[in-house]
Amino acid sequence: MELVSSVEMVKGSETSIIRFMQSSDEVYKGFGEAYFSLVPCGVERYWKIHKKATCNILVPCGRVVFVVAEYDFSSWRFVELGEEPQKRLTIPPMKWYGFQGLGDAGSIIANIIDIRHQDEEVDAEQKELMLNVPKAKVLWLERTIKDPVLWK
Amino acid sequence: MELVSSVEMVKGSETSIIRFMQSSDEVYKGFGEAYFSLVPCGVERYWKIHKKATCNILVPCGRVVFVVAEYDFSSWRFVELGEEPQKRLTIPPMKWYGFQGLGDAGSIIANIIDIRHQDEEVDAEQKELMLNVPKAKVLWLERTIKDPVLWK
Repeated sequence: MELVSSVEMVKGSETSIIRFMQSSDEVYKGFGEAYFSLVPCGVERYWKIHKKATCNILVPCGRVVFVVAEYDFSSWRFVELGEEPQKRLTIPPMKWYGFQGLGDAGSIIANIIDIRHQDEEVDAEQKELMLNVPKAKVLWLERTIKDPVLWK
Repeated sequence: MELVSSVEMVKGSETSIIRFMQSSDEVYKGFGEAYFSLVPCGVERYWKIHKKATCNILVPCGRVVFVVAEYDFSSWRFVELGEEPQKRLTIPPMKWYGFQGLGDAGSIIANIIDIRHQDEEVDAEQKELMLNVPKAKVLWLERTIKDPVLWK
């Protein structure tokens, strides 16, 4: 499955519309919940993983850089969202991810996931899975995301 | 069905989360599509109606005032979204609605609807339905929404 996909943006004379997701989209796996994360500029969050859930992410306001890595950190990708053309990031289960807010006035991450958070109860498991990751590579990614020259 | 409902907001030390909707919520009627409307300050949009679809609306960025009216304009309600505590507006089928953007730096309307737009094909029908509404009352509501003293 493609990790980053285009979304339709319809520009009117005054208002514009960004189509986040339709039930017919290939990346749509069902609806568990939708939430927004409000991220001040410079704030970072690492590392999250879902054992069963697929996330579909869009940044309608501000800018955010994400890093998505394979479970064993054998490969990774940096994805910047929030600028035109608007893109959608799909994170399948068992991928590690983190992000840093880049928008000066703060950013908003919109997330549609196919399983309700409380139905997955991942928090304790995430900590346990994190014990097995290659620490040096993880720290290198956390440093790299701070410097756009390295990941752009 | 309640038209305005509370949504959970989880405030962290740096990031905060607004839970827009869960599949277990009473107002959740299914997932057709999710989209964002970008609304500059002062911009107004009237009148929209869905024959079959239910809209669930939240304003994660900026402020927007909505007016929701019965099909025959026998009653109406003004609802302001975007300030804390965050609220969600549910618009059932066959209600007229419109909005005005109030956020100085623009506002974002997030909308989850239970039917894909192209599956409903409402645009032509909206214009036809609009022919039957009481024009004087409609104009009065469009004037009233411009003045917070009147609808607050």
